[in-house]
Amino acid sequence: MIMGQGPQIVLMGPGPSNLSATVQLIMTDPVISHMDPIFLELMDEVMKMLRRLFQTENEMTIPVSGTGSAGMEFCFVNLVEPGDAVVIGVNGLFGERMCDVAERCGATVHRVDAPWGEIVPAEALASAVEKVKPKIVALVHAETSTGALTPIEEVSRIAHAAGALLLVDVVTSLGGCPVYVDKWGIDAAYSATQKCLSCPPGLAPVTLSPKAMSVATNRSTKVQSWYLDVNLLANWWYQERVYHHTAPITMNYALHEALRVILKEGLNNRWKRHQDNHLRLKTGLKEIGFELASPEGHELWTLNPVKVPEGLNAGEIKKELLEKYNIEIGEGLGPLKDRILRVGLMGESSRPQNVDYFLNSFHEIVGKS
Amino acid sequence: MIMGQGPQIVLMGPGPSNLSATVQLIMTDPVISHMDPIFLELMDEVMKMLRRLFQTENEMTIPVSGTGSAGMEFCFVNLVEPGDAVVIGVNGLFGERMCDVAERCGATVHRVDAPWGEIVPAEALASAVEKVKPKIVALVHAETSTGALTPIEEVSRIAHAAGALLLVDVVTSLGGCPVYVDKWGIDAAYSATQKCLSCPPGLAPVTLSPKAMSVATNRSTKVQSWYLDVNLLANWWYQERVYHHTAPITMNYALHEALRVILKEGLNNRWKRHQDNHLRLKTGLKEIGFELASPEGHELWTLNPVKVPEGLNAGEIKKELLEKYNIEIGEGLGPLKDRILRVGLMGESSRPQNVDYFLNSFHEIVGKS
Repeated sequence: MIMGQGPQIVLMGPGPSNLSATVQLIMTDPVISHMDPIFLELMDEVMKMLRRLFQTENEMTIPVSGTGSAGMEFCFVNLVEPGDAVVIGVNGLFGERMCDVAERCGATVHRVDAPWGEIVPAEALASAVEKVKPKIVALVHAETSTGALTPIEEVSRIAHAAGALLLVDVVTSLGGCPVYVDKWGIDAAYSATQKCLSCPPGLAPVTLSPKAMSVATNRSTKVQSWYLDVNLLANWWYQERVYHHTAPITMNYALHEALRVILKEGLNNRWKRHQDNHLRLKTGLKEIGFELASPEGHELWTLNPVKVPEGLNAGEIKKELLEKYNIEIGEGLGPLKDRILRVGLMGESSRPQNVDYFLNSFHEIVGKS
Repeated sequence: MIMGQGPQIVLMGPGPSNLSATVQLIMTDPVISHMDPIFLELMDEVMKMLRRLFQTENEMTIPVSGTGSAGMEFCFVNLVEPGDAVVIGVNGLFGERMCDVAERCGATVHRVDAPWGEIVPAEALASAVEKVKPKIVALVHAETSTGALTPIEEVSRIAHAAGALLLVDVVTSLGGCPVYVDKWGIDAAYSATQKCLSCPPGLAPVTLSPKAMSVATNRSTKVQSWYLDVNLLANWWYQERVYHHTAPITMNYALHEALRVILKEGLNNRWKRHQDNHLRLKTGLKEIGFELASPEGHELWTLNPVKVPEGLNAGEIKKELLEKYNIEIGEGLGPLKDRILRVGLMGESSRPQNVDYFLNSFHEIVGKS
């Protein structure tokens, strides 16, 4: 293949999203050493900006050197010791993945299932927490696989009343809709760079509360992953600056620039923009006879599941959008396969012109059938 | 800090190395989806080129989505089950790290220590293997912390005669000096992009032999890391193409281009260039009264440990080289701290003009004292 010759794709899938021009360009900055004082300064600034993005004062707020799933593993691997009870809300692929990851850490997992596409009801979590008395309650804020946004505040009260830590996946919400780590009492959260941050995939922003840090530093067993051991990472990122691993330099340039762009726009403006474009899509779909599958009142602005009626072929629509219109969208997964198409409106991709272009292109395709 | 304003550093430390211009530029290519047919094609090409680089026909030859240490963890986590005996040769920091990582996987680790700076003697490994009958024999080919290059072929015979798998760290040798995975009978190897591949840090090329794959797929316990589980990764990279995680798109562009550059130069030419520049440095140092600390006959061309005589301050020399000359080198670690300076000649950084500039700058600094 010849690089640099491909079309510019309008990225409206479940991530990655399109980059802003300055994020793209910053990656041509010369690589420097991970021990260079300039890079150490950049690490400080990345941490500061990430804290503003997560709305937290947690000192342990860093980008893990891996993708979003490494962020998930980071949270579980540091907080779980073999035999620990964990209650996990499951309403989609990423809740499923949490169970798998937690079990591999030796957790005894208690699932609280909700149908894919719905939110995880706080009451169901409450009964499980009461019964199990878990060390951790975990759930996905924004289910990328379905477009459901589960409220966190009530779950937080339930978890903390039982003395449990609250672990939340904010992969598809962070930077696109409100996420308040401190105000909501989240003890551990992870995200990814390629969704609403509009940075290439490759880093996983994470944050741990002081309470979570104390659990991680007072374990009776070693963290099973050396690469993700928060005790070593804290020492490298902000304590003694003891060399741990060679940070992905260029990716950290990109994240630094993406965070600058986000904070310059302002979180409130950014959330409003994501909401506006979500509503523009919802209205536009209605006008051509389609609707979203997301639960009323809990729609995720950044990931819009479009219901595919009987008689239309989801895979064919996705394929034609890409091949004929250069628009990337996602298909449904698991029980929602063939039943929804996933339209991402994340970061730089959340633009009215993208919404309109998608609507017209989609209409042209489905109008034929 | 203001990005894009820093000096261009001559990267002659233990990595990262300087990038070639085309690797730098490819990172401005628009991001596409990890499920885009163009990206799937790129994955195929990356695997093919990595096989040529590793000189292997191993199907499982991919870049892990993390840095070199994630590559190390990938190898151990997939091959070790709790209670397995592992013999590890330790002659520097990365052998030490192997022990730590293997223990976290539940291995019973039997160390074969050699002084830092020397190679691991095959005879010492042989006695340990005979006594322990391990599942795995592991060692570091090119110790980045000291500059010692331990020969692999004899160790391979020892390991295989005892029915063990051979696991080798080729982080600082791959792409800079001969590494023959198949010919040498290596079952598991890992590297990093930011050393002799002259790509930014962020990916870890790894390869597993069919025998290692069979061990990994026939485990009685699940791999403790979901992120690094080779069974899931094989399925994503070349079997069913089942979505696992969002690959770091831009970093894979960079790796693809770096591999193209390497194979265009040709491995033999590239090794010769690394050897030539190593010899140029060695001779030049001798002329100004310095010498390398690497073991005679086992010098690592890509990482040159310069002995620092009593009375000279290693830290000050390193600092002045960076601040006044824009040359990044590394300090000694562990028992070699203050006793050596580490001069990397890796990938694009291995150029005669860099050697000469380093020698003159170094001479100017030490000449003063």
